[in-house]
Amino acid sequence: MTQMKSKYEIFREKIKVILYGTDTVLGRLFDLVLLGLILLSVLLVMMETVQGINQKYHSQLIMCEWVITVFFTIEYILRIISIQKPVRYIFSFYGIIDLLAVLPMYLSIFFPGASILSVVRALRFFRLFKILHIPQISHQSVQLREAIEASKEKILVFIYFVLISTVIIGSVMYVIEGKESGFTSIPVSIYWTIVTLTTVGYGDISPITPLGQFVASFVMILGYGIIAVPTGIVTAEFAKNSLKNSTISTKKACEKCGSQVHFDNAKYCYECGTELPNI
Amino acid sequence: MTQMKSKYEIFREKIKVILYGTDTVLGRLFDLVLLGLILLSVLLVMMETVQGINQKYHSQLIMCEWVITVFFTIEYILRIISIQKPVRYIFSFYGIIDLLAVLPMYLSIFFPGASILSVVRALRFFRLFKILHIPQISHQSVQLREAIEASKEKILVFIYFVLISTVIIGSVMYVIEGKESGFTSIPVSIYWTIVTLTTVGYGDISPITPLGQFVASFVMILGYGIIAVPTGIVTAEFAKNSLKNSTISTKKACEKCGSQVHFDNAKYCYECGTELPNI
Amino acid sequence: MTQMKSKYEIFREKIKVILYGTDTVLGRLFDLVLLGLILLSVLLVMMETVQGINQKYHSQLIMCEWVITVFFTIEYILRIISIQKPVRYIFSFYGIIDLLAVLPMYLSIFFPGASILSVVRALRFFRLFKILHIPQISHQSVQLREAIEASKEKILVFIYFVLISTVIIGSVMYVIEGKESGFTSIPVSIYWTIVTLTTVGYGDISPITPLGQFVASFVMILGYGIIAVPTGIVTAEFAKNSLKNSTISTKKACEKCGSQVHFDNAKYCYECGTELPNI
Amino acid sequence: MTQMKSKYEIFREKIKVILYGTDTVLGRLFDLVLLGLILLSVLLVMMETVQGINQKYHSQLIMCEWVITVFFTIEYILRIISIQKPVRYIFSFYGIIDLLAVLPMYLSIFFPGASILSVVRALRFFRLFKILHIPQISHQSVQLREAIEASKEKILVFIYFVLISTVIIGSVMYVIEGKESGFTSIPVSIYWTIVTLTTVGYGDISPITPLGQFVASFVMILGYGIIAVPTGIVTAEFAKNSLKNSTISTKKACEKCGSQVHFDNAKYCYECGTELPNI
Repeated sequence: MTQMKSKYEIFREKIKVILYGTDTVLGRLFDLVLLGLILLSVLLVMMETVQGINQKYHSQLIMCEWVITVFFTIEYILRIISIQKPVRYIFSFYGIIDLLAVLPMYLSIFFPGASILSVVRALRFFRLFKILHIPQISHQSVQLREAIEASKEKILVFIYFVLISTVIIGSVMYVIEGKESGFTSIPVSIYWTIVTLTTVGYGDISPITPLGQFVASFVMILGYGIIAVPTGIVTAEFAKNSLKNSTISTKKACEKCGSQVHFDNAKYCYECGTELPNI
Repeated sequence: MTQMKSKYEIFREKIKVILYGTDTVLGRLFDLVLLGLILLSVLLVMMETVQGINQKYHSQLIMCEWVITVFFTIEYILRIISIQKPVRYIFSFYGIIDLLAVLPMYLSIFFPGASILSVVRALRFFRLFKILHIPQISHQSVQLREAIEASKEKILVFIYFVLISTVIIGSVMYVIEGKESGFTSIPVSIYWTIVTLTTVGYGDISPITPLGQFVASFVMILGYGIIAVPTGIVTAEFAKNSLKNSTISTKKACEKCGSQVHFDNAKYCYECGTELPNI
Repeated sequence: MTQMKSKYEIFREKIKVILYGTDTVLGRLFDLVLLGLILLSVLLVMMETVQGINQKYHSQLIMCEWVITVFFTIEYILRIISIQKPVRYIFSFYGIIDLLAVLPMYLSIFFPGASILSVVRALRFFRLFKILHIPQISHQSVQLREAIEASKEKILVFIYFVLISTVIIGSVMYVIEGKESGFTSIPVSIYWTIVTLTTVGYGDISPITPLGQFVASFVMILGYGIIAVPTGIVTAEFAKNSLKNSTISTKKACEKCGSQVHFDNAKYCYECGTELPNI
Repeated sequence: MTQMKSKYEIFREKIKVILYGTDTVLGRLFDLVLLGLILLSVLLVMMETVQGINQKYHSQLIMCEWVITVFFTIEYILRIISIQKPVRYIFSFYGIIDLLAVLPMYLSIFFPGASILSVVRALRFFRLFKILHIPQISHQSVQLREAIEASKEKILVFIYFVLISTVIIGSVMYVIEGKESGFTSIPVSIYWTIVTLTTVGYGDISPITPLGQFVASFVMILGYGIIAVPTGIVTAEFAKNSLKNSTISTKKACEKCGSQVHFDNAKYCYECGTELPNI
C-alpha cells in the first residue's frame, strides 16, 4: 500500500515538473505544445464563425475542438492533482481561466452556440511570459505595469471628468441636432460624443446643422487636445522611472536602513549615514 | 422666544452638518444618497429621450423626475437656510449648479420640453471628490489641474495657430474641390479641415479630386504630427512636476565636504556621511 | 518749401506711430479696429460662399468687402509711405500678406470669382501677437517655436520614412484589393494608406477582402504605434527646455566667457573658472 | 596582356568611385541622377495604374520603364563588377533591393502585370541618406533608431497584450451584435476592434445595438487611453537620450571641494573654480 502511494507520489512529482516547470526538456516541450494548442483552438473558434469555412468543414472543426477540449480537460485535472494546494490553484487567475477554457464546449452539448465562448481560451496566452521565462521581457512588463499602476489614479480622475463632459456635450448635441441627423436620444448622442472625443469618428452619426457642426468642431479640438493629458501622465511616469534608473542606482542597498535608491557614486547612505557597500 | 430661536439654531446646525459635513455617519449617508439620486436623475432624463422607453413608461419617468426635483429643491433651500453666508453659496459654482439642477423641471410646466435641460444635473457629479474626500485623489486632481493650468497659455497659442491654419486650408479645399464633393461652402470646408486635422475623420465629407486628396493627405500628416505639440507641452509639465517632487535638490549643501546635490529627503551626505542641514 | 516738407514729415511721423506703434492710445485703437476689420472681412468671404446667405445679401456682402478692401489699400499705401525703408517692408512677410489681402478684390473686377482668394486675409491674424504685445505670450510662442525648430530635423527624417512606407504599403494594398473596393490606382491606395496611418479613417475607401483587412489592421497598429515617435521627439525637447529652466539657471551669465547656463547655486563659471555674479 | 588587365582595373576603379563614392563631382552627379531616376520610375509605375493616364500613354510609359530598367540593370552589373567583394554586395540589404528593382520588368515579359512590382524601387530611396551624406541628418536618424530600438521590447509586450485584448473584445462584439450589423464573423469583429482601438474608425462596420454601442464606447476610451503607453515609452527614451547628451554628469568629481555633479562639458568646478579632471 505504501509502495503504491509512493508510485502515485512519484507520478505526481513528474507531472508537476512537466506542467509547472520550465527547466526540464519535457517541461519546456509541454509548454510549447500547449502554446501551439491554445493558438490552434482560438483559430478554430474564429474559423467556425466564418460562414464559408464553417459550411465546408463544420464537422472537422468541431472534432478538432473536442480533441483540444479533452486535452485541456486532462491538463486541468492533472494540474489540480499534481499541485500541493489545489484549492489555491483553482481559485487563482490562471486556474479560473483554465476552467473557463474547457467549460464552453461541455455547455455546448446542452446549449448549442455556447462553443463560441471558447474564445476565452485567448486569455491563456497570458501564460506566454511565464513559459518564455525571459527575464528581460518580464522585467520590461514589470516596468510597464508599474508605470501604468502609478498613473492609474490620475487617469481615473481624468476619465471621470471626461465622462461627465460626455454627458453634458451629448445632451447639448441632442438638443441642437434633433432626431433628423441620427441623434435620436441622449444615450446615442453620448455614444456619438465618445466616438468624436476619442477621434475615432465612424461617421455613422454626424452633425448636419451648422450649429451642430460648430459644436462638433469644438468637441474634436477638445478631444485632440486632452489626449495630451493621459499621455502626459503615463510618459512622466516612464520618464521618472527611466531617469531614476540611469543617473541613480538601485543596486546599492543600505545594509542598515534598507533604503534602495542612491546616487551611482554614493559612499554613504543618505538616510542613515551608514557606509554603503562598494559596487 | 429665545428658546424657540435656539431650537431653530440647533436645527440649522444639524442640517448643516448633514448637508455640508462628511465626517458624521448621517452626513456621509446623505452624501451617498445624494450621489445616487443625481445618478438616477441623469439616467431618467436620458431614458426619457429614448423613444421606446418613453412611450412605455412616460408617466412613471415624469413622476420620478418630479420626486427627485422636489427632493433637490428642499435640499437647495435647506442649504441656503443652514449656511452662515447664503449669498456666497448661491453665487458659488456649486450653488449655481444646484439651482440649475431644479429649474428646468419647473420651467417645463410652462415650456414643455424644457425638462431635457435637467441633464445639467450631471454637473453635480463634480461634488464626488468633495464627498469621497480621499486626500490622495484630491491631491492627484490638484496635480492634474496644476499641470494643465501651467500649459494653458502655450496650448492657447497653439490652438490660435491651428485655427488660422484651419481657415486657410478650409478655403483652399473649397476652391479645389468645388461643390460636388460636399465642400459646399468655406464654413463647411473649415468643419471638414477640423474633422481631418484632429484625425476624427467621419467621412461624411471627403475629397474626390486627385488634387483634393493630395492636399488632404498633407493636412492629415500635419494633424498627425502637430498632435505632438499639445502632448509635448502637457507632458513636459507633468514630468517637471513629478521630477521636482521625487528627486534631486541642489539646495542642501553638505557643510563638511561641500557636495551640493542630494535627494530632496536626504538626511546624510552621500559623500562623507555627515548629517545634512534640515531645510 | 522746407516748411511744407516738414509738415509732410510730421504727418508721416504721426501715421507711423499710429500704424506701427502700440504704445499710444491712437496706435492701440487703430490696431484693435484693424483686428476687427480683418475678422469681419474673413467672415464676409466665408458667408459669400454659403448659398443661402449669398443669394439674399449678395450686394451688401460685396459692398462691405469693397469698403474693407479700400480701407486696407489705404492702410497699405500709408504703411509704405510712412516707413523709412519701404522696400524692406514691401518684401517682408507682413508686407507681402498685406498686399495679398487687397489684390484679390481688384483682380475680381477682371476675373469674377477671384474674390474668394481674399481669404488669405486670415494670415493677417498673425499680427495679433504683435498687437497684443503681451510679453508672456510672446515668450510662450518663442518657446513653442524653439522646441518645434529643435525637433524639425528628426521629424523630417521620420516623415521621409513614413512616406516611403506609404508608397510600399499603398502598392501592396492596390495589388491585394484590386479595383472593386475603391483601390482604383496606386495613388489612391497611397491616399488610403495616409488616411489609415494617420488614424483619420474616413471610410470612403476601406478594404473588403480578408487579406486586405489583415494588412489594414497591421497598418493601423503601425500608425497607432509610430505616432509615439514625433510626440516623443517634441516632448523630449519641451522637457529639456523646461527642466533646463527649472533646476538650472540661465540668469547667471559669465562676464568673462559669456556662457549662459549654470547651476542655480553655481559660484564659478564651469567654462573658464571666473567667479559668477551673485544673484 | 598585363596592360589590358591594368586598363580594365583602371576602368573598375573609376566605376567604383562614380557608383559608390560621394566625394567626386562625377560621383555626386551620378547619385543625383540615380535619385531622379528612382523617383521617376516610381511615378511611372504609379501612373500606369491610373486608368485615364494608362489608356492614353500606355506605350510611352512602358518604354520609359524599360529604359530605366535597362539603366538600373547596367548599374547593378557595374556595381557587382567594380566592387572587391561582389558576393557581400549581392546579399547585402541594398544589393537585394537593387536586384528586386529590375526583376519585375523582366518577369513581366512572361507574366504580364508583374511590372506592378517595380514599385519596390521605392525602397531604393533609403539610399538618400547615404547620398546626401549630411552628418547632422544621419546623426538624427541614428538617435531616432536608438530610441526606437531601446523601446522595442516594451512596445512588443504592449502590442502582445493589445492583440489578446483584441481577440477577446472582437469575440464579445460578435456575440453582442450578431450578423445584422456587419459583425459577420470573429475575424471581422477583430478587424473592427483594431479599427476602433487605434481610433481609425472607418465606419464600414459600426455597432447598432445599444449594448454594442456601450461596449464600443468602452473600447474607444480604452484605445484613447492606452495610446499613452507606447507614446510614454518612446518619449521617455528620447528624453533620456537628450538629457544624457545635454546635461549633467556625476563622473567628474572636483578634487578640491569634492562636489560631484557637473555639466558634461564642464572644465571648472562651479563651486570652487578649480579645474576639473578631463574625462
